Amino acid sequence: MEGVDHLAHERNKSEFDVDAMKIVWAGSPHAFDVSDRISKLVASDPGFRKDNRSTLSRKELFKNTLRKAAYAWKTIVDLRLSEEEAAKLRFYVDEPAFTDLHWGMFIPAIKGQGTEEQQQKWLPLAYKMQIIGCYAQTELGHGSNVQGLETTATFDSQTDEFIIHSPTLTSSKWWPGGLGKVATHAIAYARLIVGGREHGVHGFIVQLRSLEDHSPLLGITVGDIGMKFGNGAYNTMDNGVLQFDHVRIPRNQMLMRVSQVTCEGKYKQSDVPRQLVYGTMVYVRQTIVADASCALSRAVCIATRYSAVRRQFGSQNGGPETQVIDYKTQQSRLFPLLASAYAFRFIGEWLKWLYADVTQRLQANDFSTLPEAHACTAGLKSLTTTATADGIEECRKLCGGHGYLCSSGLPELFAVYVPACTYEGDNTVLLLQVARFLMKTVSQLGSRLSSKKPVGTIAYMTRVEHLMQCRCGVQRGFAELSADLVEAAVAHCQLIVVSKFIEKLQQEIPGKGVKQQLEVLCNIYALFLLHKHQGDFLSTGCITPKHAALANDELRSLYSQVRPNAIALVDAFNYTDHYLGSILGCYDGNVYPKLYEAAWKDPLNESVVPDGYHLYIRPLLKQEIRTARL
Amino acid sequence: MEGVDHLAHERNKSEFDVDAMKIVWAGSPHAFDVSDRISKLVASDPGFRKDNRSTLSRKELFKNTLRKAAYAWKTIVDLRLSEEEAAKLRFYVDEPAFTDLHWGMFIPAIKGQGTEEQQQKWLPLAYKMQIIGCYAQTELGHGSNVQGLETTATFDSQTDEFIIHSPTLTSSKWWPGGLGKVATHAIAYARLIVGGREHGVHGFIVQLRSLEDHSPLLGITVGDIGMKFGNGAYNTMDNGVLQFDHVRIPRNQMLMRVSQVTCEGKYKQSDVPRQLVYGTMVYVRQTIVADASCALSRAVCIATRYSAVRRQFGSQNGGPETQVIDYKTQQSRLFPLLASAYAFRFIGEWLKWLYADVTQRLQANDFSTLPEAHACTAGLKSLTTTATADGIEECRKLCGGHGYLCSSGLPELFAVYVPACTYEGDNTVLLLQVARFLMKTVSQLGSRLSSKKPVGTIAYMTRVEHLMQCRCGVQRGFAELSADLVEAAVAHCQLIVVSKFIEKLQQEIPGKGVKQQLEVLCNIYALFLLHKHQGDFLSTGCITPKHAALANDELRSLYSQVRPNAIALVDAFNYTDHYLGSILGCYDGNVYPKLYEAAWKDPLNESVVPDGYHLYIRPLLKQEIRTARL
Repeated sequence: MEGVDHLAHERNKSEFDVDAMKIVWAGSPHAFDVSDRISKLVASDPGFRKDNRSTLSRKELFKNTLRKAAYAWKTIVDLRLSEEEAAKLRFYVDEPAFTDLHWGMFIPAIKGQGTEEQQQKWLPLAYKMQIIGCYAQTELGHGSNVQGLETTATFDSQTDEFIIHSPTLTSSKWWPGGLGKVATHAIAYARLIVGGREHGVHGFIVQLRSLEDHSPLLGITVGDIGMKFGNGAYNTMDNGVLQFDHVRIPRNQMLMRVSQVTCEGKYKQSDVPRQLVYGTMVYVRQTIVADASCALSRAVCIATRYSAVRRQFGSQNGGPETQVIDYKTQQSRLFPLLASAYAFRFIGEWLKWLYADVTQRLQANDFSTLPEAHACTAGLKSLTTTATADGIEECRKLCGGHGYLCSSGLPELFAVYVPACTYEGDNTVLLLQVARFLMKTVSQLGSRLSSKKPVGTIAYMTRVEHLMQCRCGVQRGFAELSADLVEAAVAHCQLIVVSKFIEKLQQEIPGKGVKQQLEVLCNIYALFLLHKHQGDFLSTGCITPKHAALANDELRSLYSQVRPNAIALVDAFNYTDHYLGSILGCYDGNVYPKLYEAAWKDPLNESVVPDGYHLYIRPLLKQEIRTARL
Repeated sequence: MEGVDHLAHERNKSEFDVDAMKIVWAGSPHAFDVSDRISKLVASDPGFRKDNRSTLSRKELFKNTLRKAAYAWKTIVDLRLSEEEAAKLRFYVDEPAFTDLHWGMFIPAIKGQGTEEQQQKWLPLAYKMQIIGCYAQTELGHGSNVQGLETTATFDSQTDEFIIHSPTLTSSKWWPGGLGKVATHAIAYARLIVGGREHGVHGFIVQLRSLEDHSPLLGITVGDIGMKFGNGAYNTMDNGVLQFDHVRIPRNQMLMRVSQVTCEGKYKQSDVPRQLVYGTMVYVRQTIVADASCALSRAVCIATRYSAVRRQFGSQNGGPETQVIDYKTQQSRLFPLLASAYAFRFIGEWLKWLYADVTQRLQANDFSTLPEAHACTAGLKSLTTTATADGIEECRKLCGGHGYLCSSGLPELFAVYVPACTYEGDNTVLLLQVARFLMKTVSQLGSRLSSKKPVGTIAYMTRVEHLMQCRCGVQRGFAELSADLVEAAVAHCQLIVVSKFIEKLQQEIPGKGVKQQLEVLCNIYALFLLHKHQGDFLSTGCITPKHAALANDELRSLYSQVRPNAIALVDAFNYTDHYLGSILGCYDGNVYPKLYEAAWKDPLNESVVPDGYHLYIRPLLKQEIRTARL
């Protein structure tokens, strides 16, 4: 059976140029080339094997991650990979590790918040990994409310040092990745106290461990916070706990780009605008949206291929049973997720553009679009991560019982993905920020004081200006109505996703049938939302029940149009079997023999008669339980 | 801090008699007494400790489960527990094990499908655990479609035996719990072939392993199918794979209560009605609904207590921050789940009554209510398990970042619960059965051929009889509209849950304020559904947008009424800290010190400098990666 493509009949059915779609998905021919090359490099190197993760103990798992991180770095150095290629390599190694925080948070924080001088001192060390950094913000007692952090950094003008201290149990740093066992340095956030006065939360570079023997420095108590959700998953990461007992650091290790403390103990603001901090936030959240489309597309790829392989019921005259993907119940759950994967891919691309645009404006001291950009990325981070987490689990359920096996790849994909709903802004807290922005925008509509017209993603609001003439009887405040406002924020973000998908289709897109397929997916995405939220559309009189029924009919017809192209549409993601990490999703569809083979590799199958038979099973069968030693 | 109740201020707020509510939740004073006694017995016995599950390797985990199962049996024997008490003890041990299938499937199958003679031979062995049984139905290639199973049982009249055989790879038995490493016997389902003719799928008692040394018998290939979702979770269970190579069993090991094969090779039906099989299905699914309310209430208890402990934002003048439970966004997600837990508890109770009623009728040869009872249990199994799986994950998210830690208990609770959406009937397949039943009922309305009026849970359909006068233009078949029909089936099941909750409130319920609290919860449950599905209500003209808005206002006011009673309402579940298995949900609310302590127990913290430092971290820091051995 080796080499037979069990999905060939599906691939032959497709009505568009898959190779052209691969370029669209990747973003450009260059991006495709890099992804394709690096993903195959990783897939073909046994050093990056990951199919054994679920059976390793925590210690074995973690040690193996350390090995892979070192091996990845060695590969990057040996092959002289470019920065872009190196990032892709880490991506395809597909295992959370301390390096994520080193490259993704520690270095960007120094770049964004450090002075020129600080950057010159610390960045070369970090780039060569002579130091390994983490990002120590959240505490046991505070996550979302950064201003509530309790760690203190008290300036001692006599020694020109800050004293970093954890005054309470709840002030223990808690969660930072890479902190538990690896990082030599941290960007630690603490309340700055100078001359007895508090100046809010600031970042400080603190060395945690000896560069000679890795032991924690004096005054540092540090460890891992323990097991997290799932097999493998984020347990490869040493999320850490950290307590400072009056740890002294030189004054120049406070990140001073925006605010400074002088040696005389004066606190002052630099002329660098504070808004720059929001620029960094926009950057980080935009990468999270891009990751959402990766994770969702991966789950959709697995569920789609397996739905084409799996047959159940409907055999006629002894012929084969119906492919599960042909059931309308399966299509109505799977195809909206396929459409979402594409929608999120394009909104991620647009956010990348938005970030570049904002950065350019900030450099020209133009802060006008920042609030909108901030609301956009906050809202879209929330929307896409929630939909992706739910979508992965839905894909797992769409694979029936076998989706519950680790060898399906879906349990680990879910467990490793869900923290995205919480980190970098809890999804509900972010939606409330969007809601506040929307309320502010609405309140300024028609106001004589405000000359600003809403632009960009909120331009549509001018159309509802007449609403401002209506007085409604609502006397309650924002907090009282927050659950409803969150729903409004979601609707606003959905509108952005749909309209950017439509804009994408207004561009020229080469390749036979490619644009047509994307149009079908765009319509599915939009009409699925309309169906899901029809209550809001109906109650506001935007549509009539007849419209709702017609939309539903159209949705059904669109599913039929996607059906023959479904396998090709997931092939366009160009994922290797290594990256997918799923027997159910393997390219050739040869699912059953692979499932059967994989089963025997479980440690429990090392012996035919299990450990514990003599102690715990035999006494039952032999009626000797009362005298058994248990 | 030991002994301080950090939630005392919450408990003092409650407006009803918690002890009386505990009786309502348990079902009766007797049921409360048994639960209370046995749960405390388990909680106080270190032999049933479970807080270390997430760090054990598969083999350690499984061996520990074997120990606990034996220890539980020893406890049952030593204390001479009643059958009811023994079942409760297994429940509170709270760990999937081979015994679940032995007691829950193997024995009931023999009782339901075995002849008197077969029961007399096999049940005493099973009751004493001289044999351990499992239930081998599903195969690698077939789950939902039982009629598609491929295993064969061919009668050999020369030796008066059946030859059990796995003709293909996909015919391998796959998933049965207890099969992989423990069971000595199985009820194996196979296509019966007598004299070259097929007679559909039947059950056979097959010995798998030697009772002397536990080795698999000749022709039996058996093993574990490998790791499943989550830490601990279902990995304590040896779900198995099994292949038969022409295994011979005596003719009298076919379960012959309904159909028989004589020694002459004649296949015949007994006079026992086939419908009895559906009675068993009703029984099993009713227990699944009861389990749903247990699992959901457990998650809700954890999330509610932690939401009262956790504070974030909103500090005024340096005072304490706002309890997370006071945010409307939290309430609007949490309180409907609290209401659902109660709703599912009562619908489970009603289904128990329904099962008793159906059983009584079947014994009197009255099959009239069976289709309705079957549809009810199928639909409610689907509804409650889907809502519970989603609800547990929502509770996890409501606990923010800390909900992602295994020590929160929620990851394992989710992972161990979700298979309920798939086993004993995939939830979508079940809803399609309900939809078919509804369509059949509707099609018979007003028919001159049918004298039957819809009764019971479908009585309301007579009210829509006028619909049958309307002719609609729909030309498509059931399959084409199945996604919409599934939505209709859900609506039907929701109606049952709501109306049975209302019926419950029409009974007398003792205890100060108890009934009032339940009324609030019932209203929340109903109005939350109305809000969630307002599109259906609006598009069918059942309500106007104004009604929808009023319902939403009322919902908000109901949340405020629940708020002071929230902690007491979860206390009423009477769960021990052992059973909850969650630091975030512990009774005394002393969350932070316990989280901190638990962290240090992770195996990674056994050494300060991690395994792998010299091999994989130091070469990075010392710029020696190119020559490192990785």
